Amino acid sequence: ELVAQAEALFGPQPLLGRQVVITAGPTREPLDPVRYLSNHSSGKMGFALAEAAKALGAEVTLVSGPVSLATPAGVSRLDVESALQMRDAALGAAAGCDIFIGCAAVADYRPASSQPQKIKKSQDKLTVEMVKNPDIISEVAALAARPRLVVGFAAETQDVEHYARDKLQRKGLDLIAANAVGDGLAFGQDDNQLTLITPDRQLPLPRASKRDLARQLMAELATLLSEKA
Amino acid sequence: ELVAQAEALFGPQPLLGRQVVITAGPTREPLDPVRYLSNHSSGKMGFALAEAAKALGAEVTLVSGPVSLATPAGVSRLDVESALQMRDAALGAAAGCDIFIGCAAVADYRPASSQPQKIKKSQDKLTVEMVKNPDIISEVAALAARPRLVVGFAAETQDVEHYARDKLQRKGLDLIAANAVGDGLAFGQDDNQLTLITPDRQLPLPRASKRDLARQLMAELATLLSEKA
Repeated sequence: ELVAQAEALFGPQPLLGRQVVITAGPTREPLDPVRYLSNHSSGKMGFALAEAAKALGAEVTLVSGPVSLATPAGVSRLDVESALQMRDAALGAAAGCDIFIGCAAVADYRPASSQPQKIKKSQDKLTVEMVKNPDIISEVAALAARPRLVVGFAAETQDVEHYARDKLQRKGLDLIAANAVGDGLAFGQDDNQLTLITPDRQLPLPRASKRDLARQLMAELATLLSEKA
Repeated sequence: ELVAQAEALFGPQPLLGRQVVITAGPTREPLDPVRYLSNHSSGKMGFALAEAAKALGAEVTLVSGPVSLATPAGVSRLDVESALQMRDAALGAAAGCDIFIGCAAVADYRPASSQPQKIKKSQDKLTVEMVKNPDIISEVAALAARPRLVVGFAAETQDVEHYARDKLQRKGLDLIAANAVGDGLAFGQDDNQLTLITPDRQLPLPRASKRDLARQLMAELATLLSEKA
C-alpha cells in the first residue's frame, strides 16, 4: 500500500525501506600536523550512488572522506579523514544494513607513525615507513551482521578485469564494479566506464556520466537484492 | 594624471602598474598515478593577497596549486600540481617583477621516483624514499632579475619567530610573515595571526580574517617598495 503510494508519487522505489551504506572519496593519512598522503578520488561516484539509492527509496548513509561535494538531499553523511576513522564509521553503519558499497578510495598504506610536530626539512632525504591500512570492505563482508549485498570497486591502471575478479573472490563480495583509470576516465572526471562483475556474470556498462552509471548500478543491486529475498 | 583618476575611482592605488607574483595553495607530489603526498593548505591566504594586491592597482599573477577557490577578478592564474611545476611557473613569472610573495605550502619532499603504474598493495609494509624539493623562494631571491621585494611565509607548530627570522636571513628575503599552526589558526581556516618580520623590524598583526591580514600585508609591502624606490 505504502509502496504503491510511493510509486505513484515518486516512480518505482524498489529500495523503499532498505538501508544502504556507501563510502566515498579519498582518505588522508597524516604524516605530521600539516602533511598527508592521499589520492585523486573526487568522491563523485560515491555521491552519485547515494543520490541514486535515495531516488529508489532507500535510507542512505554516506561515509565520506574529504571532498568538495554537496550532500545529496535526504542522505545522512558522516565525514571522516583517515582510513582508520573511515573503518570505524563504516563498520558501525554497515552492520545489519541491506547494501554496503565501498566506493571510497581508501589509502592502502598509512605512515607507520604520525609526528606530533611538523617534520623539519633538515635532511636531504627522508624515508617514510608505511604500514598497511585495514581492509574495510573485507571486514564488512566478515561481519556477523553482514549486509545482504557487499559491493566493491576496483580501479586499476592495467589488467582491470583480472584484478577485479580476483578481488571479488578474495574478499567475499557479491559484486564488484571495475573501471580503468587513465585516458580521461575515473578520478575527478564526470564520465566513467564500468564493468559489473558477480561470481557468475559480467555486465559491461557503456561509457556514461557517473550519475547515469550510478542509476544503472543501483537498479542492478535492487534486482540482486530481490533475487536474494 | 592617470594615478589621480584611478585614485578618484578606486581609492589609493600605490601598486598601480606594479607586477606582483604570488604562489598559493599546496603542491601534490605524485607517488604513482593515483597517490600523492600533500598538505592542508587551502590557498585562502594567497588568494586573499592576490585580491588585495589587485585592489591596490597591481598586475597580479597567481601561481596556484590544487585548491577549490575562485580566481579573484582581474588576476592572472597559472595552475600547477607539483613543486617542480610550481618552481618552473614561479621562476618564469617572478623574473623582473616588483613583488614576489611565496605563500604556497610547497611540499619540502617528493617521492624519489613516481611509479608509472599504481603500486599494488602486496606487501605489509612500504618504504617511500623521499628527496628534497627545490627551494623556490631562495631561487627567486637569487635571480639575476631579482624581484625588488621577495616575501616569504613561515608556518610552524613551535618556536615560530625563531624559525622565521632564521629563514629570513638564510634565504635572503625582505620580509617574512610568520604564523603559528594549530589552535584553529592557519590551515583551512578563515582567521589567522601574522607577525611581519624584516631584517630590522618586527610587526605583530592582531588576529583577523585572512582578507584583512592580506590588505594590511599588501599595504606594508607598498610602503616598503616606495622606500626602496
